[in-house]
Amino acid sequence: MRSMLLFYTLYLLCLSLGLLCVVFVSYWNSTWRGGFAWDGTRLQFNWHPVLMVAGLVVLYGNAAVLYRIPLTWGQNKKPWKLLHAGMMFLALLLSILGLCAVFSFHNANKTPNLYSLHSWLGICTSAMFAAQWVLGLAAFLLPCSPMAFRRLLKPVHVWMGSIIFSLSVAACISGINEKLFFVLKGNTNGTQPYSMLPPEAVFANSLGVLIIAFALVVLQILSNQKWQRPEPEHDEGISQPLLREDS
Amino acid sequence: MRSMLLFYTLYLLCLSLGLLCVVFVSYWNSTWRGGFAWDGTRLQFNWHPVLMVAGLVVLYGNAAVLYRIPLTWGQNKKPWKLLHAGMMFLALLLSILGLCAVFSFHNANKTPNLYSLHSWLGICTSAMFAAQWVLGLAAFLLPCSPMAFRRLLKPVHVWMGSIIFSLSVAACISGINEKLFFVLKGNTNGTQPYSMLPPEAVFANSLGVLIIAFALVVLQILSNQKWQRPEPEHDEGISQPLLREDS
Repeated sequence: MRSMLLFYTLYLLCLSLGLLCVVFVSYWNSTWRGGFAWDGTRLQFNWHPVLMVAGLVVLYGNAAVLYRIPLTWGQNKKPWKLLHAGMMFLALLLSILGLCAVFSFHNANKTPNLYSLHSWLGICTSAMFAAQWVLGLAAFLLPCSPMAFRRLLKPVHVWMGSIIFSLSVAACISGINEKLFFVLKGNTNGTQPYSMLPPEAVFANSLGVLIIAFALVVLQILSNQKWQRPEPEHDEGISQPLLREDS
Repeated sequence: MRSMLLFYTLYLLCLSLGLLCVVFVSYWNSTWRGGFAWDGTRLQFNWHPVLMVAGLVVLYGNAAVLYRIPLTWGQNKKPWKLLHAGMMFLALLLSILGLCAVFSFHNANKTPNLYSLHSWLGICTSAMFAAQWVLGLAAFLLPCSPMAFRRLLKPVHVWMGSIIFSLSVAACISGINEKLFFVLKGNTNGTQPYSMLPPEAVFANSLGVLIIAFALVVLQILSNQKWQRPEPEHDEGISQPLLREDS
């Protein structure tokens, strides 16, 4: 009972912090960075942080903790498998759009792509996420995947899930840090320098703190074994694909 | 047997990658950044990345996986508790020296401290590490700590250990990224810009990749339950302090 109270407190925190992250990243880019467009200008770049934080952090984190909600522990796991895969697909879609925003902005402005450590980390994390989604679909939702493959993949899928999430948080932190050094240059572009901690810097740093707090809550929920979905002895979650060969 | 083979392969990888991280960060700063001094110049700053990577990542990571080495599973846990605490103390010492290097460099050059998201993350991670070390000493090595406190703290200590490690890796990634944008400015200081990926950029980005690879190996070793130290039923590891009241 106390354990469930703690779970729901953390889950509420997870939802609130996730929402706050999206609000903060949207407000930062709409207020201080000039808003959004899809026209090759810096307003197109502004979609990048919003879509990456919304997709690869907030939606991803919420999809990851889905099976920890006791509401999903009924005998029929299939609707929750579909929801997990669907939320992850939406997260992947937002991340790909977020990558398109920055590549297209760079190309329009003749800026090279993929040179910074932030970009190396971000592109690898996104590729790992795409591979994880495709492998997850093939192993756990398609009827033709062999049972041995499912059993082998499940712990890898769970572990990689946390790793991809942690790497995406590291990519966000380095990205926000880099962006603030780019845009808060002091005299050269009429802003106060980052080192003077103008309101934008405090706000965007706070976004970074919120992302870390959200990540800690998600990782705490994922790591507590008491909150793992109790699987029946024949491990229905692994052995029953979503689409049966006879369906 | 296969599990132990995998463990030792990963452990060898952990040692090699850790060594490579220290070699890479030292070589980067000695070759491209001009070497080391403790004189308030930028050569003093160069100690910062070297000491943080060596302390808060490599030594910390190696100290964290110590109890996973089967060699340490003998009945007498005390020498390993001392070694774990000693390695962590050295890691903390190196991190504090690394922080002193950057604070002292900033102060000598009238640069504000603690404004970037990297610095917020780094200082919080270091503070958490210090608190974790002190609490660990109080709970697991001193004879006067109540058993209930030890039992309560152990899972928190283990979980926080991984979290502090992950945050320190995120701080390193954002720090390397920030430093490369600072120093590879193109025409203004006679370097090739970061965006042209000169040899220094490729080398320091690779340092970031090595740090991530090291972190993945450490987190994989920590997460595998098969490699956790088998504790006797009366849980000697928790219940026996290092210093007995009658000793």
